[in-house]
Formats: sequence, structure tokens, C-alpha cells
Amino acid sequence: MASHSSTLFASPSSFNLSSSHRLNPSTKYVNLHFPRPIKRLHFDLRCSVAIEKEVPETERPFTFLRDSDGGTQSSSSSVRARFETMIRTAQDKVCEAIETVEGGPKFKEDVWSRPGGGGGISRVLQDGNVWEKAGVNVSVVYGVMPPEAYRAAKAATSEQKPGPIPFFAAGISSVLHPKNPFAPTLHFNYRYFETDAPKDVPGAPRQWWFGGGTDLTPAYIFEEDVKHFHSVQKQACDKFDPSFYPRFKKWCDDYFYIKHRDERRGLGGIFFDDLNDYDQEMLLSFATECASSVIPAYIPIIEKRKDTPFNEQHKAWQQLRRGRYVEFNLVYDRGTTFGLKTGGRIESILVSLPLSARWEYDHKPEEGTEEWKLLDACINPKEWL
Amino acid sequence: MASHSSTLFASPSSFNLSSSHRLNPSTKYVNLHFPRPIKRLHFDLRCSVAIEKEVPETERPFTFLRDSDGGTQSSSSSVRARFETMIRTAQDKVCEAIETVEGGPKFKEDVWSRPGGGGGISRVLQDGNVWEKAGVNVSVVYGVMPPEAYRAAKAATSEQKPGPIPFFAAGISSVLHPKNPFAPTLHFNYRYFETDAPKDVPGAPRQWWFGGGTDLTPAYIFEEDVKHFHSVQKQACDKFDPSFYPRFKKWCDDYFYIKHRDERRGLGGIFFDDLNDYDQEMLLSFATECASSVIPAYIPIIEKRKDTPFNEQHKAWQQLRRGRYVEFNLVYDRGTTFGLKTGGRIESILVSLPLSARWEYDHKPEEGTEEWKLLDACINPKEWL
Repeated sequence: MASHSSTLFASPSSFNLSSSHRLNPSTKYVNLHFPRPIKRLHFDLRCSVAIEKEVPETERPFTFLRDSDGGTQSSSSSVRARFETMIRTAQDKVCEAIETVEGGPKFKEDVWSRPGGGGGISRVLQDGNVWEKAGVNVSVVYGVMPPEAYRAAKAATSEQKPGPIPFFAAGISSVLHPKNPFAPTLHFNYRYFETDAPKDVPGAPRQWWFGGGTDLTPAYIFEEDVKHFHSVQKQACDKFDPSFYPRFKKWCDDYFYIKHRDERRGLGGIFFDDLNDYDQEMLLSFATECASSVIPAYIPIIEKRKDTPFNEQHKAWQQLRRGRYVEFNLVYDRGTTFGLKTGGRIESILVSLPLSARWEYDHKPEEGTEEWKLLDACINPKEWL
Repeated sequence: MASHSSTLFASPSSFNLSSSHRLNPSTKYVNLHFPRPIKRLHFDLRCSVAIEKEVPETERPFTFLRDSDGGTQSSSSSVRARFETMIRTAQDKVCEAIETVEGGPKFKEDVWSRPGGGGGISRVLQDGNVWEKAGVNVSVVYGVMPPEAYRAAKAATSEQKPGPIPFFAAGISSVLHPKNPFAPTLHFNYRYFETDAPKDVPGAPRQWWFGGGTDLTPAYIFEEDVKHFHSVQKQACDKFDPSFYPRFKKWCDDYFYIKHRDERRGLGGIFFDDLNDYDQEMLLSFATECASSVIPAYIPIIEKRKDTPFNEQHKAWQQLRRGRYVEFNLVYDRGTTFGLKTGGRIESILVSLPLSARWEYDHKPEEGTEEWKLLDACINPKEWL
């Protein structure tokens, strides 16, 4: 869920179980009766899961997977293993692209693991030439969910009481806040979630789903930039299903809603969650395509805007919008609030916050100004394509 | 609840009903069997109450009370009426003291009312000579609570189903953020809450309680300042009950806890909530005394520190601590989170946020530095007296 928490795990919506009876459909790239009303069980782990304390590591391990599921040669083709490879590759590529634009400043890396398995790599570039704060994090989490959720998901036909269900989650999460007020902030997050089949309930299925998205938060609108950004998202979506872009664009507008302001955090992009009603291979490819689209969607905009001259008023407006970013992330973002409450790695979770932000009492941009136009587009989401 | 929301109403903990059977005790200033284990019903209105949209007013009314309870001469001696007078007087005095120190810059005032009764006065002084942002707000709220809470409170002996219970809440709330990093932030909030007796449950009692506190949040510790501040709080408490200061000092340390950081927002002060197990007149006097203590507790510290020379590092550390202030208020403060979710006046609620704040990745002050000493005192609350 658009978690900016590096710990992908900090994404409760990733844990929603679907009551769909069709799991792991074997037909590839075929959209079966979609859209359709699925009764989903939105299971909230917020109160019942806590995360082991992380331990710093001096080196990046080859994998954060347990030996038993992908840490060895034999199981390296599992979706878990391929998803980890995908997010770590994406992390390397995005960081490389950012360092190239920065022309000198480099990411600081923190690697950590958890005793029970899993871990993560946080990379942060702070106070660079172009970005005020850029965080690109990957994490792999092994946890256990209460049996209630699983029982409910399989319609509670059995009187058996299964034990807790082990689960696996992996993801990449990134927030990039540039210095120049005409250069937009970017956020992206892609994650994969899987449960084990409970050993004490014969025949109970393993479950899995994907979530993620990429969205743009400028302080000023350059229509060509926003169109470019959205068109790259649409291209990625259209390779898989023509319904994806319109559906995930709206989902994004709905998700990044700051209710108490009645405005969105930014100008959207795509967002999806709990996706399992497509072929698993197709969704893995789709998430891979989305992550690969981050650089072509974003870097050209940065190149164009990073050196635009600006004055104090432009900077103050950017800072006010950064305040809205903080409000959304601390009050509404499920990943952040979940991460804070369950003991995720705090510095990784809060790397999503800007280096600085501002709150002026009752600030209202004058109608017709560039600031007003941005605010208007946050209040009334537009179709950019 | 230490609400920084101007709308005092934005204080769910103010709505806790007590299951104490002794209401409105007639004996004055006598502490009856205290401390004692009271089984309190913590009733959370967060999901069930929404506030009417406020309407701007051009002038301050004589009172925000409805005619029926204090808006007329005959009922002006009610606790509601006297509490409103107290908070409005306190607002005037604190604003006057701040303007005197500012020497030029003045508060901007917004007055509003709600169609069903009640309203408020927000006063904000932004970007002054001494304070970066100073907000001092009063509000009066009339609302309705679901009957379940009331039934439970009176031990559910009756089979009757009472209707919704009207309630009244009034309070003053203030946050003062100075510019100079050696001058501390102050927060105070005092509030009074009362239910009507439900008309359809004969004999059911009216309930009431008080809440509030005053606390100090410096970026640097001057021990003499912190001692002065706490000693004024203790003096105010000691006039009423020797148990008040130690109890409310601890309550304050516990309340302003930023769980995900394992540190407090600042160096505390006093905090209390749901207080009704004392004489009502005594608690009204106590709240009045606390509100009157704000100026002598705080202004001398400001006078001493407002012109202290500082450098960029001092300012950056202050901004990082302001980031913690934002984290506490948006993530934990019950008044703020409640106010945001129920449609309180957003600008009044968020006036508690500093003009600017900062988040650096993984910032850790070096052991032994002044910054480290402050952090240490936030992690390990101290006895200052």
C-alpha cells in the first residue's frame, strides 16, 4: 500500500486475504471475468503482529530468503526468489540513475537482518545536489498471522482450529524528494505477499497477492511532465490489460486522499493492492514492468526541472506541500502507521518524510495562481491522458 | 488530552465516562479516598461522533453558550458559564503577554460558531519577532453521544433504552513555538466536559469531568529553566492536593510518549484527564489556577532565552525536535487525530504544528553533547524538583 516504509512489510493491506476460490490460476495472461465483485476479507494485522528487532549487517547477503525457500539453488525459481531478485535489481538501477544525475553525492547503505529470517537494504542519499532526500529500500519479511484470518478466508467450513499461519512478504519502497520546487517528488512501492499452507488443515490452500504503485507529487504543474509520467504508467499497464491503467489510476487518486483536507497528496499515477485474480506469472511480470518504468517515467522530468530558477515563495510553497506529504504519511498511509505501531525499522519507515516541511496557519493560494492550480488538481483529480 | 486542537472538542479522552457512583460531591476541597482503583469506562467516541461544519463570525459573541445554559443572566453561575469565562480570560491574558514580548506583531483572530450552538475563537501570531508560530484557541462544543456509553456507565441495571445523550465541552488549547532554538515550546490545554441527564431515564445522573495540562518542549536544556517551569506547576498543584504534582507529572511523561521512538516529546510538566473524583468547585479552581500559571511559568524563560546567539547547527537540531513534535501530534495525540477524523476546524487543530520541521535519516547526536543531553532526558524522564 503505497507504503513509504522501506520495510515493505509495513503494509497491512498486503496482508488482506482474498476469499477468491481461484488461486494460482494456471492460464497465463488471461483475465477471467474481471471486474467482478469479490467478497474480500480485509484482515487487519495491525493489532496482532509485531516484528522482531532488526540486527545490522556489515555486508549485503546474496539473498534474504531462508535456505528452505529460495536461498538455495534448487528453489531459486520460486516466485519469492524471483521477486526478491526483481526488487534488488530495481533498487540497484534506480540508485544508479539517481547517482548519475547527482554527479558526485552517493547513497548511504544500511543492511539489516532479522534473527527469524528476512532483512533489508536501506539506501538514503541526503542533501545531494538534486535531491534533498532520496530513499530506496528493499525488505523481506517472514512473519506469522493469527489463524482467524485464514479460517475466515476459507469460509470456515471446518471445525478444526488451525494454528498460526506463516507468511512471507517482500517489497521495494522509495520516496525521492528533490530540492528544486519545480522538480516533483516521486514515490513507488512494489510488494509480494504469500502465506504457507497451514500444516494442520489438510488441503487448505497457500495464498498470495501483489500490491504497489508509482505516483508523482509536484509543487507546481507542468502539464507536459504530468502527461509524460502518466503515459509511461499507462504504457506499462497496457502491456498486460487495458483495464489496468484506468482502474489503478483511480485507485491511486482514492488512496492518496488526505481526508481532513479534502485533497490528494499529489497528482497520482497508479496504485493497486490485494491483486491475485490474475495469473501469478502475469502479475510478477506486471510488477517487474512497473518497477522498470520508474526511471523512464521520472528521470527525464528531473533532468528538465532540476536547474529551473526559483525564489523564496516557490520554495515556501514546496515546503507547504511537503507538510501535506507528512500529514498523509503519518495520518493515513497504512504502511507507515502500521510500521510505526508494530516495531518496523523506524529510520527506514520515516525516510519517506521530507528533509523539511512547513505549516502556515490558514494558507490559501490566490485563485488563478500556479499554486492554486496545483491545489485545484489535488482537490479535483484530472485525467491527464 | 493535551489536545493542541483548538477545538477543545477534539479530545476524545474528555469524553470518557466514569463509572464512579459519586458524582458532584458536595464536600468542597476534600479528597475522598484517593488514590483508589476506579473502574473507568473509557468510551471512545472517535467512530461515532461528527461535528457540524463551522460558520465564520465577524464578531466575538458575549458567550458561545446556548441561551438555555448560561447565555442568560440567570444561569451565568453554572460551571459551564464560569468555565467559558475562565478560558476566555486566560486566552486574553496569554495573548496580551505574548504581544508584549513580541513588541509589535499582533495575533490574527478567527471567530466561528456552529449552527447547533457553540463556537470558538482562534488566535494565531505567525512569524513574529520571538515566536515562529503562537496559537491560543478557545472553543465550546455541543454534541450528542451514543446511548451505549451512558447505559454502560450507570451499570446497565435498566432494560430501558435511553436515547442519545447531549453533552457539552469547552476548553482552551495553545501551542507556542519560539524562533530561538534556546527558547522552549510551550503547550497548554484545559477543558471541561458535561453530559445532560437523559430525559427518558428517570434518575440517571448528569456527569462531568475536567482535563488538561501544561508542558515544556525545549531543544536544549537549561536546568534552571526546567526547574522554574516545574516548580510553578508544583505550586499550582500543591494549593489543592499534595498528590497532584507527582501524579500529574508522571501522567504527563506517560502521555507525551512517542512510542516508535521510545522517547517523550519534551520535558513534561503536568497532565490530567477524566478528573471527577474531587469536588467540582475545587477542580474548577484548580483548572483556573493552572491556566493562570502559564504566564509566570513560561514568559520569564522566554525573556531570558529569546535573544541567545545561535548558529545553523542549533537551528537544525531545533527543527529535528520540531519533527518529533509533528510525529507526536499527528500519530498519537488523541485530540489531533480525533479532530482530523471527525471534521473539527482543521486550521485550528493543526495550528499546533510548527511553522517548519525537519527529518534527517538516522540522526544520532554524539554522546555527551547538549543535543544528546536533551534526547537523554526525553528517553529517561527526570525528576526536576
